[in-house]
Amino acid sequence: MGPQAGLDLAEKLIRLTQTTRDQDHIPFILFSLPASVPDRTDFLLGNQDINPAHAIAGQFEEMAAMGVTIAAMACNTAHAGPIFDLVLELLRGKGIRLRILHMVQETIAHIRAAYPQIRQVGVLGTKGTHRSRLYDLALEGAGLEVVIPDPGVLENNIHATLYSPAFGIKACSSPVSEEASYRVRSAIRHLHDKGAGAVILGCTELPLAMKDSQVDGIPVIDPAVIIAERLISETCPDKLALSD
Amino acid sequence: MGPQAGLDLAEKLIRLTQTTRDQDHIPFILFSLPASVPDRTDFLLGNQDINPAHAIAGQFEEMAAMGVTIAAMACNTAHAGPIFDLVLELLRGKGIRLRILHMVQETIAHIRAAYPQIRQVGVLGTKGTHRSRLYDLALEGAGLEVVIPDPGVLENNIHATLYSPAFGIKACSSPVSEEASYRVRSAIRHLHDKGAGAVILGCTELPLAMKDSQVDGIPVIDPAVIIAERLISETCPDKLALSD
Repeated sequence: MGPQAGLDLAEKLIRLTQTTRDQDHIPFILFSLPASVPDRTDFLLGNQDINPAHAIAGQFEEMAAMGVTIAAMACNTAHAGPIFDLVLELLRGKGIRLRILHMVQETIAHIRAAYPQIRQVGVLGTKGTHRSRLYDLALEGAGLEVVIPDPGVLENNIHATLYSPAFGIKACSSPVSEEASYRVRSAIRHLHDKGAGAVILGCTELPLAMKDSQVDGIPVIDPAVIIAERLISETCPDKLALSD
Repeated sequence: MGPQAGLDLAEKLIRLTQTTRDQDHIPFILFSLPASVPDRTDFLLGNQDINPAHAIAGQFEEMAAMGVTIAAMACNTAHAGPIFDLVLELLRGKGIRLRILHMVQETIAHIRAAYPQIRQVGVLGTKGTHRSRLYDLALEGAGLEVVIPDPGVLENNIHATLYSPAFGIKACSSPVSEEASYRVRSAIRHLHDKGAGAVILGCTELPLAMKDSQVDGIPVIDPAVIIAERLISETCPDKLALSD
């Protein structure tokens, strides 16, 4: 999907693998073919008709043909039901056996296990993620209450932080602008003020602008870290390093 | 090869691509299958018999089958003649059409173009790189004089910096240890003292410990930056950002 997000997941996969030699690192293949996958948010918002699931399933098919056994997508929005469910259906229809981790479900399972006392969870994501209620539905299903940003915060602190040609993460990520980091941090405080006990960075680009694992004492959850840990624990559990 | 080096090249490819949208980024596939490629240095030093060229050619074959048209290896040592030449021969033998950029040749072409006044060029690389005279032969062929580290510096400032389980880059790269950075910087000063007008970081892991483009005024050349720029200029020249 976004090339930065794929790179970020690969970096976490390597960093969280405990090893002293190149050869001991977990083998992986990173597909970074952004022009081939229609914008997930645009599809969910109805701005374009082509379901990105077709392109995504095609890439998974190629991976499976190369011997890949477990895979993940470095894009929260692609886990919305209308996209993710069709991906699975297309692969099943072709008889392709490839285990695909679900970033949202894994993230919520992690929160329940690591912070059992938390009842209200904040979510920061793209407009498409919020519109699809991707995290909301999954959190509610797990008996947790969702805290979402007010519309102005969503527009100015998240959408602009991702897409602004001047300071947005998608345009300017090495390094991410201070403006982007400031806006994400403000949005986390906003969700805290609304009652969130933890905040999920529900768009893979947001962790690029927010490296800290907490803000003002509330945990900030990066789903890419969770999914990297799961990729390791499901393939080489003895190599999983303790997260910092 | 080393997973960090592959990630580093991918990061440079993305960073040096000028674009404002995900979809405009150059499509790429990163193979990070370190256990499948025997250690290049071990082979060149005669410590093991299997030429890594066979595994490398197999991976290039898979890439070509997926539609890849141009490729590079994030490993200087793999460009030594005994490995690189066999890779090309194996691919030719199978009729595979894939353009593979030569990191060493591209780096030297860059130095000649960017610093025409420089006659002596320092090289820091693995023992295998030095033993194979990879950069030496290519630099001499280009009419340049090679400056290599003294044996003690090679052992303590380069080999140890790469392979030490305590502070080496291969074991400890996120972040790289201060000890590793200090030793690389010292080695650059050592080559400067010996007359080098520029220094090539001739092992893909060294730039992880040395981010500056110069030390005490002498240019420090990262072949991964050169190769990332070439991958862009050969595929989407209008998207090549100016290097910083």
